[in-house]
Amino acid sequence: MRCDVIAVGTELLLGQIIDTNSSWIGEQLAAHGISSHIQVKVGDNVDRITEQLRLRLDEADAVIMCGGLGPTHDDLTRDAIAAVMGVELRHDDEVAEAIIELFASRGRRMAANNLRQAQVPEGATVIPQRRGTAPGLICPVGTKVIYAVPGVPHEMHEMMTRAILPDLVRRSGRPSVIRSRVLRTWGESESGLNERLDAVIAELDTPGDDKPTLAFLASGWEGIKVRLTAAAPSAAAADEILARWEERIRGVVNDIVFGVDDDTMESVVLSLLREHDQTLAVAESVTGGLVTGRLTNVPGASKVLRGGVVSYASDVKFEVLGVSPGPVVTERAALEMARGVRRQLGSSVGLSLTGVAGPDEQDGMPVGTLIVGLVLGDGSEHVATFRLPTTRDQMRQMSVITALNFLRQRLMAQ
Amino acid sequence: MRCDVIAVGTELLLGQIIDTNSSWIGEQLAAHGISSHIQVKVGDNVDRITEQLRLRLDEADAVIMCGGLGPTHDDLTRDAIAAVMGVELRHDDEVAEAIIELFASRGRRMAANNLRQAQVPEGATVIPQRRGTAPGLICPVGTKVIYAVPGVPHEMHEMMTRAILPDLVRRSGRPSVIRSRVLRTWGESESGLNERLDAVIAELDTPGDDKPTLAFLASGWEGIKVRLTAAAPSAAAADEILARWEERIRGVVNDIVFGVDDDTMESVVLSLLREHDQTLAVAESVTGGLVTGRLTNVPGASKVLRGGVVSYASDVKFEVLGVSPGPVVTERAALEMARGVRRQLGSSVGLSLTGVAGPDEQDGMPVGTLIVGLVLGDGSEHVATFRLPTTRDQMRQMSVITALNFLRQRLMAQ
Repeated sequence: MRCDVIAVGTELLLGQIIDTNSSWIGEQLAAHGISSHIQVKVGDNVDRITEQLRLRLDEADAVIMCGGLGPTHDDLTRDAIAAVMGVELRHDDEVAEAIIELFASRGRRMAANNLRQAQVPEGATVIPQRRGTAPGLICPVGTKVIYAVPGVPHEMHEMMTRAILPDLVRRSGRPSVIRSRVLRTWGESESGLNERLDAVIAELDTPGDDKPTLAFLASGWEGIKVRLTAAAPSAAAADEILARWEERIRGVVNDIVFGVDDDTMESVVLSLLREHDQTLAVAESVTGGLVTGRLTNVPGASKVLRGGVVSYASDVKFEVLGVSPGPVVTERAALEMARGVRRQLGSSVGLSLTGVAGPDEQDGMPVGTLIVGLVLGDGSEHVATFRLPTTRDQMRQMSVITALNFLRQRLMAQ
Repeated sequence: MRCDVIAVGTELLLGQIIDTNSSWIGEQLAAHGISSHIQVKVGDNVDRITEQLRLRLDEADAVIMCGGLGPTHDDLTRDAIAAVMGVELRHDDEVAEAIIELFASRGRRMAANNLRQAQVPEGATVIPQRRGTAPGLICPVGTKVIYAVPGVPHEMHEMMTRAILPDLVRRSGRPSVIRSRVLRTWGESESGLNERLDAVIAELDTPGDDKPTLAFLASGWEGIKVRLTAAAPSAAAADEILARWEERIRGVVNDIVFGVDDDTMESVVLSLLREHDQTLAVAESVTGGLVTGRLTNVPGASKVLRGGVVSYASDVKFEVLGVSPGPVVTERAALEMARGVRRQLGSSVGLSLTGVAGPDEQDGMPVGTLIVGLVLGDGSEHVATFRLPTTRDQMRQMSVITALNFLRQRLMAQ
């Protein structure tokens, strides 16, 4: 089964908006065992949209069109589909009703052109809207099919998940339930992971119905995601396959798995602290507040995180945190920062980061040096030095997750 | 002149990498007065790449191919171009020499397959590499042309700017120098800017050689960029056009222009503080360290920024910053936070942020409330309350730039 993708909108060609939609769709198609060979961006021109749609439908079994379903005269996806189907557009009363109602419920005046969105190619099935005004479309063309979804990402995601992916999977004749699980890892390169999981990957590559597909998704300073996707006749059977292979993989690389699915390093660290009934304060130098900035992105962080001190100037380290005079990119200074912030902010755990983001070296330490200090609730002290990339932004972002992972590992060991 | 774009790589179709390259290229083409009607993503399959290249070259005057120039057997762009040109690939000694030298200079062993990158279609001109190993290509096909650039963004940007855009502009027969200037704005929506600049835009829309094009580029919580692009026979003439129209635009909206070109809100604020010989300390609650995190992304920030206190738990506000007991999302608390952090960290300027990022309201204030407090070097105190979006991440990011802009405006007024 092959499904190509057309993203419609002149703003995409002009680079005013980056087409993330077809990437998201491509990822979903792959996870559901459907190939996608060509993905096209085309502007708001009905002849060009129609031509591209014809070309894609000639080659593929299905085409997803994204965007161009709005109310203005630039929204031409409906017209192009009708042309390719060889049918007229008809006014759909139910869709019109839903649009009028949506505006009424929000107390907003409806411009008449909104009813353009109730135009539907003859023979098409409407995917009702749940979030916006433009409905989606399922348009059969012989044994093939054209889908149309709005270009607004959250509206598109919702319709893809609710209506289009299930329809595609049904047409592909594969087992009908697809489930996936993501293992979040930190501390190993993609090639390193590949090497360690060599035997597991080889086993997955041999034929067999009860085997998931495995993909590595690099997500920069978020680490590498290992995604397992299983297809099975039932959700329970798919989950059983996932559980079995998750265990296999954890048997090899459990040391670097910090979470699953929607877990983030910060959510995992906050949960661990909560479980251990601990509170946290952070002293940051090189990261300048990014660690607490990231922790506080988790709703409810305030139950655990008391706060932090950004001691960017050296004498703030001396005066506010009580670090003893001298060089500040040292393990001694890192430990004194952790002790100081723990005392000043009255937390049970104190974490600190000092280092060199550049452009110049400092205290004889090269750019890319990170030192993490930690005092735990039982008073035990831990410190470690890391060598990170030397690009300023990368170094700082890697420092954040490196320090949080250091804290996570020490909490797990308690 | 029309130039289409083909991005090559199976990882793009699978959504493992988002194709930002063709968006960047599209933006550059538009700025140089060149149309782009179709942009395509295709996987690492030589037949499909060749077919897409033929289709694009049939319609457009030029095609830029991005990616697929690396050393592995999956890198097939060279082969596809040779097929469309109807020529063989030849081994280019100079390119090979440069590749061998690059590895030697980095003290790395060169795998033999790297010499695949020295294969060049007969009749093509090489764009020498300055950053990586894969050279770019300029391949004439009758009166048309195919360009090939590596998929690594910074290598691609450099070659586009150095060789391909100038070549395209020359072929298009337009005046040969294109210059642009970006005015960075904060505090007005795109439609609001449009309305205020109505008369200027109308004037730019009437014919005339000495007029730049104007584009609004929304960049989320970085504000809206107003980009002027002028084409002229010389750089001096283009700069003169830009200067004249920048003045016209500033005459209307100067209140919201915070910088030009590569300026950022944080770099502008730090420069202003340096000019005024002031130092800064920041007390953050709702943003949890994001303000200092952003300021410290500017190299040299330490000359001005002493640091900050992240007072996430209320009693850190009371105990560390000396805020008087009671509700903390108030203008009184914001001012006390600014005074407290200024005193504790010994800075001349104290800035504070308190507010409600949700999910729940706090102290009777709704989600989306931001209060900014400020004590300047002369002891003058300023405070303001803002209503921002209610999505947690948006609210926090908007808070950062809103507070920095508040500080900027007060410093300018001094």
